[in-house]
Amino acid sequence: MSELKRKRGRPKVRPDSHTDTKEALLQSGLEWLTQSGFCSSSLDSILRSIQIPKGSFYHYFASKEDFGLAVLERYRLFFEHKLDKHLLDESHSPISRLKNFMHDATMGIERYQFARGCLVGNLEQEIQTLPANFKQAIVDTYLSWQKRVEMCLIEAKQQQQIGPDEDTEALAKVFWIGWEGAVSRARLLHSSAPLEQFGTFFLERLQR
Amino acid sequence: MSELKRKRGRPKVRPDSHTDTKEALLQSGLEWLTQSGFCSSSLDSILRSIQIPKGSFYHYFASKEDFGLAVLERYRLFFEHKLDKHLLDESHSPISRLKNFMHDATMGIERYQFARGCLVGNLEQEIQTLPANFKQAIVDTYLSWQKRVEMCLIEAKQQQQIGPDEDTEALAKVFWIGWEGAVSRARLLHSSAPLEQFGTFFLERLQR
Repeated sequence: MSELKRKRGRPKVRPDSHTDTKEALLQSGLEWLTQSGFCSSSLDSILRSIQIPKGSFYHYFASKEDFGLAVLERYRLFFEHKLDKHLLDESHSPISRLKNFMHDATMGIERYQFARGCLVGNLEQEIQTLPANFKQAIVDTYLSWQKRVEMCLIEAKQQQQIGPDEDTEALAKVFWIGWEGAVSRARLLHSSAPLEQFGTFFLERLQR
Repeated sequence: MSELKRKRGRPKVRPDSHTDTKEALLQSGLEWLTQSGFCSSSLDSILRSIQIPKGSFYHYFASKEDFGLAVLERYRLFFEHKLDKHLLDESHSPISRLKNFMHDATMGIERYQFARGCLVGNLEQEIQTLPANFKQAIVDTYLSWQKRVEMCLIEAKQQQQIGPDEDTEALAKVFWIGWEGAVSRARLLHSSAPLEQFGTFFLERLQR
């Protein structure tokens, strides 16, 4: 918490162009939403932390909801890119690619001292109090990430790293169910052990 | 959401004794905290929903934090009881007992139309913004539930339902990581399919 407060309290350099302003808003939104959630993050505090006036904000976003959805979309694209980088890397076997993704994602969580977790998992927990549009956006994000893992598992099957009868779609779902559970526990415990524990179980049992 | 609003809007019978008042507070706290989280639940709204004046509240609890911790303790005990009921039931094999617990827990989630999820998982997501005392209470709750699953898995090993080399402590951790992930996804999708998907994967892979 002290790390979080310290970061928020630090005055940021005021962005000097329109692109920079939108970028600063999205970056700050990501920081606030992953750490405090959508409902607990006040727009005033976000804007104050990056010294952007409300008028500028409404130039880019119609509402806090619109802003939250834009932050979520940015996060989805960031992880699609990260997933593609690893899961399409043919210099590794499909199972190694999955392992590499998990390692990369774990590094990302450690980099922020377990303060952030996963924006999608965090928003998912707030679902009862979020504006209705978020549900579909969160579902679509999971589907997109899941599809990428599924394609990798299909390759694993073709290369006989996993059995011919494995239901790759079901396995990809289980991967994201467990991985998000592990991210949440890692954030609670300030330790990457849960990510390692779930990752090891999933991959080992896949290859038996 | 409409179900949630309807419930909150409904005036409740005012409790007529001290025990009833405390009980009504804990029940209502559970409803609010599991649906909206600790930070988004206002004490005023909770008290209004059960028509209890603030003075009475402070007779039982020193603060909203103290109240939240009492609600969490009540929830922990409720699930310890549910776990014991199934996992100590020697009329079933250890693996069947685990399956029975998952079935029971799934029914509980369906009963509230996926609006509640798991209080512990919900609070875990709020960890960055919760008062410091919550962390240890959440960690202790998981440890208590995990220990019960571990004891059941030790019995499964003794009865040769799972391999002699299985690390039952690690497996119990993975169970709770994945199960909480599944509860969260079930709440998002308003479907118990994620619980079924994770449960099936976990139990099948355990017995190979």
